[in-house]
Amino acid sequence: MWKRSNQRISGLFLITLGIIIITLILPVSAASVEENSESIADLQTALTVVWLIICGGIVFLMHAGFSLVEIGLTRVKNTTNILMKNFMTICLGIVVYWAVGWALMYGADAAGLIGSDQFFMTGADNGIWTSWWFQMVFAATGATIVSGAMAERTSFKAYLVYTIFMVGLIYPVFGHWVWSGAGILTSGPIVDTIGVVYHDFAGSSVVHMIGGFSALAGVLLVGPRIGKFNNGKPVVIPGHSLPLAFLGTLILAFGWVGFNGGSTLDGNDPYISLVIANTFLAAGAGAIIVLLITWMKTGKPDPSLTANGMLAGLVAITASCGSVASWAAVVIGLIAGIIVYAGVMFNEYTLKVDDPVGAIAVHGYSGAWGILSVGIFAIGQGNGIFADAAYTAAGAGLLYGGYQQFAIQVVGLILAVIWAFGISFIIFKILDAVMGLRVPEEDEIAGLDIKEHGMSAYPEFVLAKE
Amino acid sequence: MWKRSNQRISGLFLITLGIIIITLILPVSAASVEENSESIADLQTALTVVWLIICGGIVFLMHAGFSLVEIGLTRVKNTTNILMKNFMTICLGIVVYWAVGWALMYGADAAGLIGSDQFFMTGADNGIWTSWWFQMVFAATGATIVSGAMAERTSFKAYLVYTIFMVGLIYPVFGHWVWSGAGILTSGPIVDTIGVVYHDFAGSSVVHMIGGFSALAGVLLVGPRIGKFNNGKPVVIPGHSLPLAFLGTLILAFGWVGFNGGSTLDGNDPYISLVIANTFLAAGAGAIIVLLITWMKTGKPDPSLTANGMLAGLVAITASCGSVASWAAVVIGLIAGIIVYAGVMFNEYTLKVDDPVGAIAVHGYSGAWGILSVGIFAIGQGNGIFADAAYTAAGAGLLYGGYQQFAIQVVGLILAVIWAFGISFIIFKILDAVMGLRVPEEDEIAGLDIKEHGMSAYPEFVLAKE
Amino acid sequence: MWKRSNQRISGLFLITLGIIIITLILPVSAASVEENSESIADLQTALTVVWLIICGGIVFLMHAGFSLVEIGLTRVKNTTNILMKNFMTICLGIVVYWAVGWALMYGADAAGLIGSDQFFMTGADNGIWTSWWFQMVFAATGATIVSGAMAERTSFKAYLVYTIFMVGLIYPVFGHWVWSGAGILTSGPIVDTIGVVYHDFAGSSVVHMIGGFSALAGVLLVGPRIGKFNNGKPVVIPGHSLPLAFLGTLILAFGWVGFNGGSTLDGNDPYISLVIANTFLAAGAGAIIVLLITWMKTGKPDPSLTANGMLAGLVAITASCGSVASWAAVVIGLIAGIIVYAGVMFNEYTLKVDDPVGAIAVHGYSGAWGILSVGIFAIGQGNGIFADAAYTAAGAGLLYGGYQQFAIQVVGLILAVIWAFGISFIIFKILDAVMGLRVPEEDEIAGLDIKEHGMSAYPEFVLAKE
Repeated sequence: MWKRSNQRISGLFLITLGIIIITLILPVSAASVEENSESIADLQTALTVVWLIICGGIVFLMHAGFSLVEIGLTRVKNTTNILMKNFMTICLGIVVYWAVGWALMYGADAAGLIGSDQFFMTGADNGIWTSWWFQMVFAATGATIVSGAMAERTSFKAYLVYTIFMVGLIYPVFGHWVWSGAGILTSGPIVDTIGVVYHDFAGSSVVHMIGGFSALAGVLLVGPRIGKFNNGKPVVIPGHSLPLAFLGTLILAFGWVGFNGGSTLDGNDPYISLVIANTFLAAGAGAIIVLLITWMKTGKPDPSLTANGMLAGLVAITASCGSVASWAAVVIGLIAGIIVYAGVMFNEYTLKVDDPVGAIAVHGYSGAWGILSVGIFAIGQGNGIFADAAYTAAGAGLLYGGYQQFAIQVVGLILAVIWAFGISFIIFKILDAVMGLRVPEEDEIAGLDIKEHGMSAYPEFVLAKE
Repeated sequence: MWKRSNQRISGLFLITLGIIIITLILPVSAASVEENSESIADLQTALTVVWLIICGGIVFLMHAGFSLVEIGLTRVKNTTNILMKNFMTICLGIVVYWAVGWALMYGADAAGLIGSDQFFMTGADNGIWTSWWFQMVFAATGATIVSGAMAERTSFKAYLVYTIFMVGLIYPVFGHWVWSGAGILTSGPIVDTIGVVYHDFAGSSVVHMIGGFSALAGVLLVGPRIGKFNNGKPVVIPGHSLPLAFLGTLILAFGWVGFNGGSTLDGNDPYISLVIANTFLAAGAGAIIVLLITWMKTGKPDPSLTANGMLAGLVAITASCGSVASWAAVVIGLIAGIIVYAGVMFNEYTLKVDDPVGAIAVHGYSGAWGILSVGIFAIGQGNGIFADAAYTAAGAGLLYGGYQQFAIQVVGLILAVIWAFGISFIIFKILDAVMGLRVPEEDEIAGLDIKEHGMSAYPEFVLAKE
Repeated sequence: MWKRSNQRISGLFLITLGIIIITLILPVSAASVEENSESIADLQTALTVVWLIICGGIVFLMHAGFSLVEIGLTRVKNTTNILMKNFMTICLGIVVYWAVGWALMYGADAAGLIGSDQFFMTGADNGIWTSWWFQMVFAATGATIVSGAMAERTSFKAYLVYTIFMVGLIYPVFGHWVWSGAGILTSGPIVDTIGVVYHDFAGSSVVHMIGGFSALAGVLLVGPRIGKFNNGKPVVIPGHSLPLAFLGTLILAFGWVGFNGGSTLDGNDPYISLVIANTFLAAGAGAIIVLLITWMKTGKPDPSLTANGMLAGLVAITASCGSVASWAAVVIGLIAGIIVYAGVMFNEYTLKVDDPVGAIAVHGYSGAWGILSVGIFAIGQGNGIFADAAYTAAGAGLLYGGYQQFAIQVVGLILAVIWAFGISFIIFKILDAVMGLRVPEEDEIAGLDIKEHGMSAYPEFVLAKE
């Protein structure tokens, strides 16, 4: 139509018309495009907030899972005590991570070693509160792991004080090294020398190894439960409620949806689903292999070890879930299952330490395997299925011809063991000297419930004599 | 380049060209911008739907938490009965809130007092169904609170009828006053006189005080359990399963992610994270202070009171979580912990009422404290960290120099007490006359499980003689 | 202003100016509009990912719910065994559905009967991983249903092998027929003849009928537990823990938020809320009617049947939740409650089969009712409240004058019964011949926990003699 316009229509009229159209439409459009862009950015942020709040909530529920696994695998007479320890762990964790933990982990970096401001969350805006929530529910987990390993003979008071140190110092310092962006494992001389940054997606080391190797220090110092070793041979002390142990295990597995899924830290990350798929493939594989091992070894598939097989798979894949192919996740889970079985045997028969719930093998040893698994199976940033993944291991693993990622994973693994074991050993030693780490023998025999809390967990049920 | 255009290029050609460009590009762009705007609005709505559906689901799970806390803190012989009461509360709640509750709460306002249409959700569209779901899971909570306080001696039938009144009348009427936008606490003479609207973010009064003070009416009328008072002195009747009580408490705390988080009613609200952070800071603080109080008072930290300390913190912060700084959330939680401890003592030693689970202190008294806390600690809309918060207390609290918010919170608190206590007292009186509120003495002694349901909760376990 | 422009302003200048404006602004705008559109599409995908990951997680937790319901309704002596069966079901389910199940269900169609590629998830991208996660958590559910019906006398090893067939063959084949888009119930001669596609929103047939009618084959072959029938009359064998049974039921109901909600498969679907509302209306109605029936029949409201009433409502509405009005959801739930009650009576008194948890009535019979309910109550695509619903029954139900939808629902129902019962009958027969389906009589009397796993579930509690 416009092409048929004749010369009688004056040029000026048309120009004017055009400009009017531009004036009327363009500014509106232009503004809307910008407004739309802003709305989109807000939506991306909002989706991340929703994602992390829910994932954090699911991780919070893991504290119920840890409680149930622990009481399920221990005796009636210490149930109230364990419930209280786990409950106070998250309660103290919230307040301590608010006051101190976040600051040391994510405050302004000092020498790559520690954060140094934002105590009491000073100056936190909405974005920081989102991060705080998600990080906080992780922070209390380390102490809970220790609680399980030291169950049935540790002083309630000493444990609470230790928890404050775990959430306020031990966990955030190592967390700073790995996740702050400014720590020694992601910047500075170590990284410069090796050439890639350390990768621990959701905390095989930051959460699980720190918890597991702190627990190892704890059980070495507190000693085994009365009756655990008979002439140096480990005695099985059965847990009092398998239903609660399995319910706890499944709640923990559910929790890993938030734990690993949320660790994308971005609700818009297209790799969330692969992270979740890998996570549960490792979980299933870990349980299946332990089922088979115990079935072959003893003729009967062992329930509590099988449950720990799933947890071992979950712990191991926590570091590598965003970096490996699904077949590798199955392999990582299978090996984690073998490790947790061998680890429990090693602890009981070789180290002769007493860990009622297998926490050291599940979290410490399988966590270490998870850290190494990144260096073996990682496809590497920009490669294959991870072509445009933002948060995956930078280097390729040994299987794909890379060695740098493996090298720095070994460094991080060693640092985690030294830091967790060392600092916890020192703190437990001091606590032992100051207030006593272990309850008196008579309290242990009578059970911590009556002695420490004056309340039996199941007062109406008749119990078998020991 | 265009500036170098010479006069040989006719003006008309250029105009035509320009208009063609405009014709070709602009309409497409303009349409797309509008389409994008629509898509963005749809996404904002969709994110809110996803957020509220999940939050509502998490709140639904709180009914499992309430069940577990109640049975955990009461005796084996009434467990089946309590499970059935809590289970039927949510089942009846769903149907009654669909048929009547929503209509009275959110139907067209009549005189600021009550809603008057949308019975059976007539005319509901997708948006209203979203709201219904989230509000429905709240509605049944009030009755559940009452269930706990009146446990172990109340008639099952009378309780069910009461539940219908709670979900279909008591809760929605007060809810209309506070949350419908047209009720007497957010519009009309009271608000005009005081100058700001009443603020109860997620229901410290609407849910918890209504439940708690209805429960007070109930326990006064139904009387204490046989054996609870010995010559006027309260006797401790221990609960039968601390593991279930603690599991319930942690499920309830998890539920508060949905309860307070979802009460933003908007998945795009940037303040969700602060709401959640404040919620859990108060929870942790409430538990810690009760742990310390009971430890100091008795030499042993009390498990069930400590669990109630966390719940008290959660109940209190429910009103104020979107209006206060994080340090204030800690203080609100600490005071809630003190209140729940003092409230339990007051109920047992002064009022001499029997509330097996501490529901009146947790929900009623701590809820009242939560309502007042808004009037004390609120920063006020447009101020400080809440500069652009949509759903925060309008006025500043006493600490920030405001008095109006405190004044209207006091008015709302008084209305909540009068309405809940008054209407519940009347309904329970009528139910007592019509069908009997309390089970016969022999049924109470034998346990309600056998008498009311013919089924023991744990038929295979040997129980200690009372 | 521009209209007042005089002729002294040369046309060319204005044109040039206009074009400069266009040149400067338009390309930027145009690019941004496209970028915005892409960002919006990414956000829509991301919201769906977040929605399906969380919904899948919630469905995963249902395996805890199934475990608890099953152990709660059975005896102490088989608790460990049931826990292990349910636990291994999801563990095997993950790995088998990864290796085989997905491929047979969603791989390239062969003759409308089966998928034929993507074994071991070959070539899976992020979108497929999202779908895999959500479908996988469904897949293991069928086997879990069977586990409940055959509890307390079935060989652990035979059950595990059966589970591999369920997740790797039985479930995915029927799933292919219904949900792959290329199966015989949504394309091809059956659909061409009847004129509409089969509709099973979230699996009343695909999950529940397949599980329920496979279970029927299993219980017929394995026979009733010792002591279940006395001279042909059914004997009540009470479950050992009502608290765990009710906790399990509420976790399952919570799970249905993910089960039905997530089955929109789109986080942007505006009908999510209606789906959820219908789901829980049916749940509430199902429980209420069974409460009333058992109360009237026996004078005492029956706890475990009432819990099954809720589950029956949930199972039934699973097919129709996205196709019916809310009043219809209530009616569907009420009828489901009647069916589950009648079904349990029919199984025990007429068929004389032993299903300890009522799984056949809950999942099989109520599932069949759910499939029919679509053909009765569906409003039909494009009609009324479903005017623009993407995923609703295509045809109107009998009540709205349509008959085609009912016809194809009947076809699908018959296929589900024949396939599930037939293939499971064959597999169980083979397993019985190869390794024995039932444990030896002495093992059954002693309990499977000691015989199959060497571990009692509650070793410290004193149990009543049987």
